[in-house]
Amino acid sequence: MNYRLTIQYDGTRYAGWQRQSGSTPTIQGKIEGVLSRLAGKPVEIQGAGRTDAGVHALGQVANVRLDTELSPEEIRAYLNTYLPEDIGIVSVAPASDRFHSRLNAIGKIYCYRLATDPARHVMERKYMTPWTEPLDVPAMEQAAGLLLGSHDFQSFCARKSKKSTVRRLDEIRLEQLPGELRLTYRGNGFLYQMVRILTGTLVEVGSGQKAPEEIPVILEARQRRYAGVTAPAQGLTLVQVLYS
Amino acid sequence: MNYRLTIQYDGTRYAGWQRQSGSTPTIQGKIEGVLSRLAGKPVEIQGAGRTDAGVHALGQVANVRLDTELSPEEIRAYLNTYLPEDIGIVSVAPASDRFHSRLNAIGKIYCYRLATDPARHVMERKYMTPWTEPLDVPAMEQAAGLLLGSHDFQSFCARKSKKSTVRRLDEIRLEQLPGELRLTYRGNGFLYQMVRILTGTLVEVGSGQKAPEEIPVILEARQRRYAGVTAPAQGLTLVQVLYS
Repeated sequence: MNYRLTIQYDGTRYAGWQRQSGSTPTIQGKIEGVLSRLAGKPVEIQGAGRTDAGVHALGQVANVRLDTELSPEEIRAYLNTYLPEDIGIVSVAPASDRFHSRLNAIGKIYCYRLATDPARHVMERKYMTPWTEPLDVPAMEQAAGLLLGSHDFQSFCARKSKKSTVRRLDEIRLEQLPGELRLTYRGNGFLYQMVRILTGTLVEVGSGQKAPEEIPVILEARQRRYAGVTAPAQGLTLVQVLYS
Repeated sequence: MNYRLTIQYDGTRYAGWQRQSGSTPTIQGKIEGVLSRLAGKPVEIQGAGRTDAGVHALGQVANVRLDTELSPEEIRAYLNTYLPEDIGIVSVAPASDRFHSRLNAIGKIYCYRLATDPARHVMERKYMTPWTEPLDVPAMEQAAGLLLGSHDFQSFCARKSKKSTVRRLDEIRLEQLPGELRLTYRGNGFLYQMVRILTGTLVEVGSGQKAPEEIPVILEARQRRYAGVTAPAQGLTLVQVLYS
């Protein structure tokens, strides 16, 4: 039977989602470890998004094929009993045999949280990046508007790839909350470190180092060095994976 | 000049609010340390609530007398620069010379967060207490109603005192949120560990170990052993201190 897992994690102490050799702690590795114990044999899971080291998730999705007599709720309880407290399985649901968490995803939502007044966000400090310099939010919004739509985002990708780097960005929402500027990105797919580079670039626009008008030039260049810095992993959270 | 500080903290790694001798880390001790450095001489602050070891605060209030040329915003920036990241000074405001954070407080709001589905609250796990057994919330609400008003809360106090143990509880709100049962207490003052004992008692009602009708008996007894267990510190947060 194929199961769909929805997963939360505090990524602080992990080397990211993807299993690595040796004892490097990863989210995928931890979950596979517990599932393999449940199944009595090695089990592999497929995650929808390979979040980087230090990135968090509220709604990561994975699928796993399991031969078990346990009900989905029992599988969930087993996982939550044996997983560390910084990983939580929100739900386990039977899925169609053809369901693949990554290949069937039609989009993802990420949010990047900047703590403009970190002293007001002590409890959430591990999920935000402090940024106390002034930011020109209207300029950032103008730049964000120029990023929307289908583009080759090679300039916003930390890795050269032979595969297509064309993606569609459907929404970039900037919310000014008390002591926080929250950037929410919705798109059909994101390249390696793309959200962090988009955020670093928008912050450079907000702080006057780049003009919004440079966005088309950066896109056109298709070279990483044209875009802004990579914002730290700690402020990034995979909020939701979208399916049709 | 007398200043009023509003303070947030993650109490996890502290032995509570109140300064202790030696190197035991306390919130008051940390803040006094930084203020003493600013003032160039020992400074004492008065906190409105002496939260226990492991208890958190979103709106603790303290006052401090300081001789300084710095503006309130500069004092705040100085404090937030030198304080550890689990303590945040939300605001510093000039106060009347007679203002005393504890003596002038007319009430406090605390909340106690029970994680009924801890896997849904991975990010907030340090500010909640897991409770996955079923709870009869209507019975808890009935018991909560019997606690409202002015009573001698000696049974809900972890320490014998010669001072009056009469307090007025104005509100106990129970909110069923996704994966959480949140108890919010508003009253004119709280005895030592009172919120945690109230919570432990209400949870015992919710799990059928006590009947709501026992509340008047517990109050009448004026003995700690009649009430329920002391709920763990980790789930408790001082939300707000009320002034007229």
